[in-house]
Amino acid sequence: MPLKVAILGFGTVGASAARILAEQKVPGLTLTHVYNRNVARKRVDWLPSVIWTEDLESVLTSDADVIVELMGGLHPAHDCVRRTLQAGKSVVTANKKLIALHGVELESIARHKGGHLLYGAAVAGGIPVIPGLQHGLAGDRVTRMEGILNGTSNFILSRMEKGGEYADELAEAQRRGYAEADPTEDVDGFDARSKLVILARLALGVDVSPEEIACQSIRQVGAIDFAYAKDLNCTIRPVARADLRNGKLVALVAPMLVPFSSPLAWSRGTENMVLMTGQYGGDVVFSGHGAGGNPTAVAVVSDLCALAAGTAPRAGEAVPASVTGEFELRHYVRFVVKDRPGIVAEIAGAMAAQGINIDSLFQRSGFGKDSLPFVVTTEPCVNSRLRLALARMQNTDWQAELPLDLQVLEPEPTIVA
Amino acid sequence: MPLKVAILGFGTVGASAARILAEQKVPGLTLTHVYNRNVARKRVDWLPSVIWTEDLESVLTSDADVIVELMGGLHPAHDCVRRTLQAGKSVVTANKKLIALHGVELESIARHKGGHLLYGAAVAGGIPVIPGLQHGLAGDRVTRMEGILNGTSNFILSRMEKGGEYADELAEAQRRGYAEADPTEDVDGFDARSKLVILARLALGVDVSPEEIACQSIRQVGAIDFAYAKDLNCTIRPVARADLRNGKLVALVAPMLVPFSSPLAWSRGTENMVLMTGQYGGDVVFSGHGAGGNPTAVAVVSDLCALAAGTAPRAGEAVPASVTGEFELRHYVRFVVKDRPGIVAEIAGAMAAQGINIDSLFQRSGFGKDSLPFVVTTEPCVNSRLRLALARMQNTDWQAELPLDLQVLEPEPTIVA
Repeated sequence: MPLKVAILGFGTVGASAARILAEQKVPGLTLTHVYNRNVARKRVDWLPSVIWTEDLESVLTSDADVIVELMGGLHPAHDCVRRTLQAGKSVVTANKKLIALHGVELESIARHKGGHLLYGAAVAGGIPVIPGLQHGLAGDRVTRMEGILNGTSNFILSRMEKGGEYADELAEAQRRGYAEADPTEDVDGFDARSKLVILARLALGVDVSPEEIACQSIRQVGAIDFAYAKDLNCTIRPVARADLRNGKLVALVAPMLVPFSSPLAWSRGTENMVLMTGQYGGDVVFSGHGAGGNPTAVAVVSDLCALAAGTAPRAGEAVPASVTGEFELRHYVRFVVKDRPGIVAEIAGAMAAQGINIDSLFQRSGFGKDSLPFVVTTEPCVNSRLRLALARMQNTDWQAELPLDLQVLEPEPTIVA
Repeated sequence: MPLKVAILGFGTVGASAARILAEQKVPGLTLTHVYNRNVARKRVDWLPSVIWTEDLESVLTSDADVIVELMGGLHPAHDCVRRTLQAGKSVVTANKKLIALHGVELESIARHKGGHLLYGAAVAGGIPVIPGLQHGLAGDRVTRMEGILNGTSNFILSRMEKGGEYADELAEAQRRGYAEADPTEDVDGFDARSKLVILARLALGVDVSPEEIACQSIRQVGAIDFAYAKDLNCTIRPVARADLRNGKLVALVAPMLVPFSSPLAWSRGTENMVLMTGQYGGDVVFSGHGAGGNPTAVAVVSDLCALAAGTAPRAGEAVPASVTGEFELRHYVRFVVKDRPGIVAEIAGAMAAQGINIDSLFQRSGFGKDSLPFVVTTEPCVNSRLRLALARMQNTDWQAELPLDLQVLEPEPTIVA
């Protein structure tokens, strides 16, 4: 008997998943229900034997074996998923927010009631990071991961690398439909943070809340920073990073300087990339299209195939852990100053007072004395110390705007000739 | 009851897999037997409760549930694997040659007898290409793949990119233990070909014999070719490629010109990389360490974890297909000529007679008239036509050595900004 599949939410991803199921005639799966509000406008003629409904309750109490939750958001998605799992049925979802916030509770229900909760589509859509991790790296112990988990931010920053300013590239992303009218979730890091929480749970076995992880927006990055970064043999990318150190999760979502030698520097456009470092196997890189209807639908259908084939994995139990954003990395600090004698001495003094060693100071020519971008790089130090040093300089008369503080990703540790 | 695991062959990979099992205390798995010839010299004190034996028959008839075949080669590996599967037990192997030649037969035995045949370690060792494909891309229809599947060849070519000659870099690879004293399997493409056959079976669903796929050696590539390639915004990499076209497999293993914009150009050293193109999800790239004891052992242990967790997949049935090496790609042909008037006309005439359009002709300065490297690039054409054109020029008096013909990989079709 094929599994009966109900799709909740017939937007781009839902329609695309239905199309793959119809076109590829995937064995062991039958689409039986499609739920959507105002479902009449969603109806398509290439799904003849499906029940189209706007009555959510009727789907949840139907004979469907698997619910594909593609409504997004927490309400009513959370309730639908919980009830389905409590009934011993399985759920496939692309809802990163739901899984980041409630995944541990929902996994536990699935484990006890015998259903499965699969969410390969929740992180990096079409790139099989979650299956690769759960099946292919099961034999390793992952200790660190870093990734580009938000295609919109990566689109904006990788275009700024070619000389554009933030506002223009955001507008371009909006024009192409990559960014929302309110781009907060993407550009301020919250979307990537949900995905990082999910990956940390699966790869590092730790259970943390999204709010515990600090996010830094990409809004403050300017075209000038790419010019300076290039002088340092780096570019700038939206990085989500997590390490496990003494049982504590060190995690952060922030634009970072990425050396051109790092795989993360290769990513362009809306591409996503995840680099996992294992204790035994070293570095593995996954990359591809992280979003969009079709790639996300591939991940959804792949999860359905696993249910049909009986090969769906169960996530290991995750241990609650505390979180810190205190990586010990080099920093790039770009000041914009009203030039006068003594500024370097003041910066050096504030840094020294926090025990931070300056690595280099440099400025490009061609700027006016009143608004002069000026860069300091430091030796590796923790964020909090640098923040204290910057706070001490906050009320000085020579700063034309707030400084931009970016961490510098060290070159990848093991993929080298 | 944990699965009882017997390892056949306690070399680097076997010892590394045993160490991971011991250190990580992987649940559901117990190592019970280790077979090796002259096993006494292999014995280690960190595996206290294991039966060490040089009697293969005693292991095959033991109560072990899973055989990990790491002996390599076809004899006695083929017989051991077949007997184990016929007994309804499961096999994990890293033996690409065995799986390339006999995988279809062995899969069929496993399917009928209820055991599993897993070989995640046979292709690109520590990179979860096979699990990524079987679990994460199950919902897509892969139509094309290209990869760097041999770390030794990639080590040699990526170092030649920096100016070294083939012989020196081969010697360096041998010094580091990456290349055998007889490097044929690696540099002539046979190792990559076995892996390509396995990937074509799993990703494209076609069953072909390794001998049907043409291999071109990397031995004829010179440092000068990297200089010319750079003028074309390319580098040279050992590429294994397969497309499905009208039910026919178009496949080839050869050094190719790879545009710097292609992910394959990013690979360095012994790194492996696989790029899969799906009908729905577009391009996905996997990369990392393809070989070495630890990464390969991670793949072996991951397969064991899947058996213990009951999530081991079954390969779909593959359909026999015919094979051609006739990609329609641009070509780079490097002649070495004794310069005299009329050579360009002769080349152009021979090409035109085969309907091949020349795209560019160029030469670098600084070479003597008697041995002048000279490059012709063509518009896309099939290999056989170009081979005919080159054959027609074979007995001319102006060729100082045989020309080198390399295909030019088109830029990746979909990962772009």
